[in-house]
Amino acid sequence: MARNNWFCEKLLPGESDYPRIMYKIKRKVFSGKSPYQKIEVFDVYRFGRILVLDGIIQLGQFDEFIYHEMISHLPLFYHPNPQKVLIIGGGDGGTLREVLKHPLRGAYLVDIDRKVIEISQKYLSFVSNRAFRDKRSKIFFEDGIKFVKKYKNYFDVIIIDSTDPGGPSLPLFGASFYRNVCRALKENGIMIAQSGSFLEQFSQIKKIVQRLKNSFAFIKMHRAAIPTYGWAEFSLILASKKINLDKANFKKIKARYKKSNLKTKYYSPEIHFASGVLPKIYQICR
Amino acid sequence: MARNNWFCEKLLPGESDYPRIMYKIKRKVFSGKSPYQKIEVFDVYRFGRILVLDGIIQLGQFDEFIYHEMISHLPLFYHPNPQKVLIIGGGDGGTLREVLKHPLRGAYLVDIDRKVIEISQKYLSFVSNRAFRDKRSKIFFEDGIKFVKKYKNYFDVIIIDSTDPGGPSLPLFGASFYRNVCRALKENGIMIAQSGSFLEQFSQIKKIVQRLKNSFAFIKMHRAAIPTYGWAEFSLILASKKINLDKANFKKIKARYKKSNLKTKYYSPEIHFASGVLPKIYQICR
Repeated sequence: MARNNWFCEKLLPGESDYPRIMYKIKRKVFSGKSPYQKIEVFDVYRFGRILVLDGIIQLGQFDEFIYHEMISHLPLFYHPNPQKVLIIGGGDGGTLREVLKHPLRGAYLVDIDRKVIEISQKYLSFVSNRAFRDKRSKIFFEDGIKFVKKYKNYFDVIIIDSTDPGGPSLPLFGASFYRNVCRALKENGIMIAQSGSFLEQFSQIKKIVQRLKNSFAFIKMHRAAIPTYGWAEFSLILASKKINLDKANFKKIKARYKKSNLKTKYYSPEIHFASGVLPKIYQICR
Repeated sequence: MARNNWFCEKLLPGESDYPRIMYKIKRKVFSGKSPYQKIEVFDVYRFGRILVLDGIIQLGQFDEFIYHEMISHLPLFYHPNPQKVLIIGGGDGGTLREVLKHPLRGAYLVDIDRKVIEISQKYLSFVSNRAFRDKRSKIFFEDGIKFVKKYKNYFDVIIIDSTDPGGPSLPLFGASFYRNVCRALKENGIMIAQSGSFLEQFSQIKKIVQRLKNSFAFIKMHRAAIPTYGWAEFSLILASKKINLDKANFKKIKARYKKSNLKTKYYSPEIHFASGVLPKIYQICR
């Protein structure tokens, strides 16, 4: 909703009495529809340019790097040698940008909505920053659910960079999809998904954990405070077939990070580990 | 401001274009004035009962334990054997409640505004939870600035649990006050202060760090996501005369925590250390 020059996210059913954040609009940059969803771009004060899908903020210029760095570098540093990475969703290109900072052979991106990629490249080019033109990038305009079924024992890392459950992303939180993601991963494979806000969407996170446990041997949650994604800390959930994520070696990750000369603004090997320490009230995996 | 049943914090000068959080009001519980400030208590949806001083939320029932546990247990576990603790401000009693979980000899609390304590005990008794009646508690209704000048080499820990700079709390962020706090502390003494939101009040935090460096040998910042204190992570700043806070021993703190049998919902020795790891963009002390 954008009323009186203030933007406020669409409220999901049952959320009408939630505290809500209002952003003062400087300028409406784009508003349109794809076959899948409503797409809007605004310039707001303090947070810069924002991308809004079906009334929900997907990213803000002010802090997009926190989310994109964390959802990319956590699995790519947990994995000892990632070569083939699949991003499901992520049409804005921010995750692709971060993933390509690693010496990969191929970064696959599959987004159901071609229009999101077009609009992002036109109005939010600072997010993808030429990642779509990297020769290692392979872009597919397809349903991620169907796409992932075609692969077996193929990817090292799968990143589910989706919108919230509801709308086109709902099946990306289902048990059968997670089974197919597991099958598409190699033996050492790791997946990561955004799973909502810890204090706000606790019951949703619990369900996701349960579903992932049916397919994967190891589950680990991380946290990050991302202002654009509302009050309370945001959760990222990792699942692994064989690598015990709780036994990651800090010194090895630190050495690899240093050697890679990879530039980040939020992520560091120290944050990698600190973000995996959950306050008592968040502890869902145990 | 409380309009149309939605509460919104008063905006400070220069903040009129900031994103703002609106809380749906269930019930206005109290509204009055002390000689120092306006005091309000509301019941809001999702966040429970909130205490508002001069238009700014001081605590919410939903998450007050995050702030009160962190501002108390960080300095009290950094210090090897805290016996005398001074709380400046904190009239709601939440910090006093947490401090008294330690085997102290004396917990001094000095708040300039007697009315805040009265209203808190009447309408927010779940916060102090009988802490004011503990025989180790010594309560003073005085100006913290003047109070602290009377002591020299006396306290192990001083906790500055103030409102934001502006109004009666402004001098609690000044260099001369910090000098007096330093003087009132014993040789092993440690102080902690709330210092605002990392991404929102970055320049304010930088000034506080500079001022503290004039009096103290070691400075260390911690972070916690506290929904009631707005978007972005909240900062807590510690300063120490002799104990190098960067060299704290995790195993010792963990052993003391376990032995104390102290009940917490957010704090743990693991969170103690993880909250002291700052994302690259936050790093102010270096």
